[in-house]
Order: sequence, then C-alpha cells, then structure tokens
Amino acid sequence: MADDSRLARLRGLVAESGHGAMFVSDLVNLRYLTGFTGSNGALLVPTEHDPVFLTDGRYRDQAAAELGAAGLGDVEIVVTRDLIGVAAGRAPADLVAETHLIDVDSWEKLGRPEASGRLVERLREIKDDSEIAALRRACEISCSALEALLIGPLAGRTEREVARDLEWRMLELGAEDRAFDTILASGENSAIPHHQPTDRQLRAGDLVKIDFGARVDGYHADCTRTVVIGPAADWQREIHAAVRESQAAGLDRLRPGVPVAESNTAARGSLERAGWLDAFTTGLGHGVGLQIHEDPFIAAAHPGRLASRTVLTMEPGIYLPGRGGVRIEDTVLVTDPDHGGEPDVLTDMTTELLEID
Amino acid sequence: MADDSRLARLRGLVAESGHGAMFVSDLVNLRYLTGFTGSNGALLVPTEHDPVFLTDGRYRDQAAAELGAAGLGDVEIVVTRDLIGVAAGRAPADLVAETHLIDVDSWEKLGRPEASGRLVERLREIKDDSEIAALRRACEISCSALEALLIGPLAGRTEREVARDLEWRMLELGAEDRAFDTILASGENSAIPHHQPTDRQLRAGDLVKIDFGARVDGYHADCTRTVVIGPAADWQREIHAAVRESQAAGLDRLRPGVPVAESNTAARGSLERAGWLDAFTTGLGHGVGLQIHEDPFIAAAHPGRLASRTVLTMEPGIYLPGRGGVRIEDTVLVTDPDHGGEPDVLTDMTTELLEID
Repeated sequence: MADDSRLARLRGLVAESGHGAMFVSDLVNLRYLTGFTGSNGALLVPTEHDPVFLTDGRYRDQAAAELGAAGLGDVEIVVTRDLIGVAAGRAPADLVAETHLIDVDSWEKLGRPEASGRLVERLREIKDDSEIAALRRACEISCSALEALLIGPLAGRTEREVARDLEWRMLELGAEDRAFDTILASGENSAIPHHQPTDRQLRAGDLVKIDFGARVDGYHADCTRTVVIGPAADWQREIHAAVRESQAAGLDRLRPGVPVAESNTAARGSLERAGWLDAFTTGLGHGVGLQIHEDPFIAAAHPGRLASRTVLTMEPGIYLPGRGGVRIEDTVLVTDPDHGGEPDVLTDMTTELLEID
Repeated sequence: MADDSRLARLRGLVAESGHGAMFVSDLVNLRYLTGFTGSNGALLVPTEHDPVFLTDGRYRDQAAAELGAAGLGDVEIVVTRDLIGVAAGRAPADLVAETHLIDVDSWEKLGRPEASGRLVERLREIKDDSEIAALRRACEISCSALEALLIGPLAGRTEREVARDLEWRMLELGAEDRAFDTILASGENSAIPHHQPTDRQLRAGDLVKIDFGARVDGYHADCTRTVVIGPAADWQREIHAAVRESQAAGLDRLRPGVPVAESNTAARGSLERAGWLDAFTTGLGHGVGLQIHEDPFIAAAHPGRLASRTVLTMEPGIYLPGRGGVRIEDTVLVTDPDHGGEPDVLTDMTTELLEID
C-alpha cells in the first residue's frame, strides 16, 4: 500500500480523528478505495494494522483481480457470507463507521460504532489524474453524441425515441453506460425539471431540454442543452439568454480558493437582475464523479472554498409551468492556480441557442 | 384508501405487531405502497390515523400524480426538505422503522424506533394482477428479443456488441429499460457466474451464456440461456443436459404449499446424481419483482412454503473454470391450486441446446 494511496490517506484521516479503525461498507466508497465493483463487500481500515477486505464467494476472483489492479494486491481478502460478523470480530474497540449510510441492523451487529463522518466522501471531492481522465472522456463522448444527434431532424420523433437514440450514440462512442436516465423534455414538458421521456412528438416551436451523460470507468458526465425546433420565438430567446448569462456568471466563479457559495450568488444574481429568479426552482450544481450527485453541493450556505481538482456542475434554469423551460449545464473541472485557475469546461460544446429542424 | 389496498394491508400488519405506526423510507417499498418513483420520499403509516407522505419540492407534482394514480389521492402530502424531522414530529411514540434498510443517522433522528421487520417485503412476495401482468410482459419482451438475436450469426461479434444488440432489441419491443446489466459470457468466460461483457469475439466452439431481462413498469424479467457457436462438443452437450435436467427438477417443485427448500433439494439432487454438484457454485433462485433480487431466496434453510402468486427464478448452473459454463434460468409464477398448481414459466422459450452460426 503506497503512502499516497487512497487507503493510506483514509488511514491518516481516521488516525487524525483519534479512532482506531474505520469500517467502510458503502459500495461507492468501497470502489473508490479499492477498485472493487461487486455488489457485496466491506473494508476494515485499522490505523495500526493492515486493512482487511471482506466479500462473499461470488466475488473471490473478482476482488483479487480488482484490488490487485488498484495496487492493493497485498491486502488480505476474507471470503465469508457474514461480512459484518467477521468484521466485528476483527475490529478494535474504537471503531467508526459510515452512520450516514450503513443500516441500523448491521451497525448494531458491529457493536454500535461511532460516526466516521464523510471521510471517504471528503477524499473523493479531489480527483486524481485517472479520475479526471475518465470524466474528461465521459464528457467528450457525451458532447460528440449530442452534436451528432442535433444534426437532426428531430421534428416528428418522440421524446422517447430521441432519448434512446442519444443513449445509443454514447454507447457506440465507447461509453460503458449512460450516466443516468436521459431527461428529454419537449414543449411544455421542458418546464418540468426532471421529466421522464414520453411518446410526445417533437414539433416546430418546441423548446427541447436534453439532460444526459455518458459513464466511463464508473465516472459520470452530466450535461444539459436546450434547443428549439424551428425558428425560436422571442420569449424562448429571452429565457435562453438569461439562463446562458447566469450559467456563465456562476461558471466564472468555479476557481480554486473561491467560496463555494460565491458561484451561487453570481448565478442567482444574474437571474435576479434579468427578472427570472423566481422561475429557477432547482439546485445550482453538485459534485460529480463515481456518483452523479456527490459532494460538494453548491448552495448559499456552503461554508467551504473550492479546491483544485474538484469537478462539479453548473446548471441554472428557468421553468415556466405550462409553457416551457430552459436549462444549461456543464461539468466543470476546477483547475490549478498555477494554470491560471480558469474553469475547465469538460462538456466542451456551444451553449448558444440552436434551432433544429 | 380501499380496505384491500397495499397500504391498508400494511396498516393491518403494523397493528398486528402491536405498534402504533411504521415509517417507510426505502424507495422500493415506498414505490410498492404508493406508486411514487422519485428519489426522495417517505411514508408514515399510523394504525389509528391517516397516512402521511413526505417528499421535497422537486417531487410535489409527481407525488400528487403518482399517489393519485395509485388510488391514494386523499393521502396528505407534506413537502419539506427535512423528511425525517417532520416525520419524527408527527409520529406516535411506538413507531417502528425498517432498521434493516434505514441509515443510522436518520434512525437516531427519528428517535431510535424499534425494528418493523420485513413487513413490506412480506407483502411484496405475493403479486397482484397488475404486477403479474407487468412481469409477464417483461418476460415476453425478453424472450422475443433473444429469439430474434439467436437467428444469428453471432460468430465474429464481440460480447459487448451482442449484449448491446440484445438490450436494444428489448427497448425496441417496449421495455422501459434493461432489468440489469446483461451478462454475455463466451468461451472460457462462460465459466464466470457474473461476467461483464468484454471485447472478446465469439467464435466456433464457444459456449455463450446470456443472462438478461427487460424491465416493464418497474418489474424485472430474469432469464438465462446458454447456446453454442457452431456444432456442440460432447462435453458441452453433457453439461447442458445436466443443467437442463436439474432446472426441470427444481422448476417442478415451484408449486403452492410446497416447502421452498424442496426445489433446492430437487435441483441439487439432480446435479449430484449427474456428478456435477461441485461445479454449481451460486444460489438456485430468488424472488423477482420491483427488485431483481427480492424475497424469497431459495435455500436449503428456508423454513417457509411457496404461496400462489409468488414469482421467482430457477437457475442452476455448471461452471468449469478455464473451460466454460452453462446456466439455464427462468422466471416462474407459482400458480393457484385451483388451476392445477402447475408452475407458469413466464420466460416461455425453449431450453434446448441451440447451435448458432
């Protein structure tokens, strides 16, 4: 286990918190720490002894291969049907666990350990090179797929058909999966922030909001563009321009050392000046990585500052029930101050209002 | 709320257990009880008062529409960012919660309620007409898609391509999604029970194990067939025949009133007589419905008996590391004794060994 490995850094955080060991059973945190992608596993991370990985017989070979590939070939793997019981037997008294994630019955069986807090989530906020490469690739695939789709025509096709077409294109371009169920919302449906595609046919005059992304090596892209079928009406141009300006204002504050809340102030301020703040009813942005929504979440109350290598979304919108809505969203890397600290937009594609046939 | 509604039946079970209310926050159990498909919600089910549904602002309209469609239009919907806090404030003292599912922090905030046990899971084991219709449709789509795929040819295509092709066909036939990531395992990979598709090309002489299914209205199909590319070798015929016989033996015991463990005895006994029991390393079957794996799980230690309207899989296999493997799996409805009690195989497709170009 290299001293700078994720596991070693977690061990440092546990020691710092004054505890003797941490039990990790959340599958996303487990994957981050060990590379394990199975559906049942756990990790005991003592500060004074070697870590122990636990899984059941189905994943014996897979765990060995995945931990080996993550440079953890020397970590002991215990194969058991009773992960919790075995871990409880081997854990020191001053154990901590993910009480925000683990179920009560397992926690009782572990001997009611104290809360670890979001230690692994904190590590996950800062992406390393391999993570950034996967996110960049996922975003490239997403944009290439959308650009090809938007050659059109789209009129006459259903929301469901177009969503499926876009997802198919991402797979063809090398995505392992879509990052989440595509939101393809046309006409008045575009006013619904999290609309599920229907059999409604796209037609001239529709705003079409497309929120989608590819997944690569477990890492998620998250991108939204809103286009118009046929020539855009004035009100559509107006709200699109307002969202685009808000997005640019928020995006500009995604720089290292800047308070997380500052992009919130900037994006909301822009919408407020344009007179549309009341029509923005969702969150402004969130971290993205092994989960589609992860720390940090952009909010006025966020007390922290942005760190380099954080990846997050910026996604203001205007939603007018019964009429339509616009959202523009990018996945953005907070860069190093040495490189000027300019936000690196991974979903690198125009945000202009496109008129599609 | 009709007296025979799922919610009313749950209320009966909670009253029977001697408690005053149940808090349900697991999203699958919540969907079962209320039709709600959002990502954040909870339900308080008092025995003496009306139920209360809680969700956040994103799902205000969706919750009203989905609860209405489930015949729960008169259930109060509370919109709040603090589901747990509000529920805690309104719950009676003798609350129970899903301690096998809820996280420790939420449970503490609820006031450490006692364990409800798997009350909703118990209700979910017995499917009603609408659930059986969705499962039947998901299984029909699955089989139609596989039959079309197996017209072939398959040789020269990669595992990944063929898996994607099959998933695409299910969507075209009306599936809302695949039920799970398709396992397409060829040649020596077929010996790995839960293989993820690779870029390996299928070629003559390969066993090809295909474990897949469609999802319809939230309900999952689960089906496996194993075919051969080109003419089958004797050893392939032998293990396929042994699995097929085992599967038929287990399947025949999926009848109302029969102990759950009996199909386990029958299927394993068949493999044992053929001399292959050591090569069967996975579970034999599981319930299927709103989750791909749910109660009941077929095991020697299961103390219960099968009830009509239970839907479960039967999936013995032989896995020979380095050589190849065979699994045959059906999704099966346990029928009513009045209808003879014959198992109703929803994945109605031949289990003979097919030789594909």
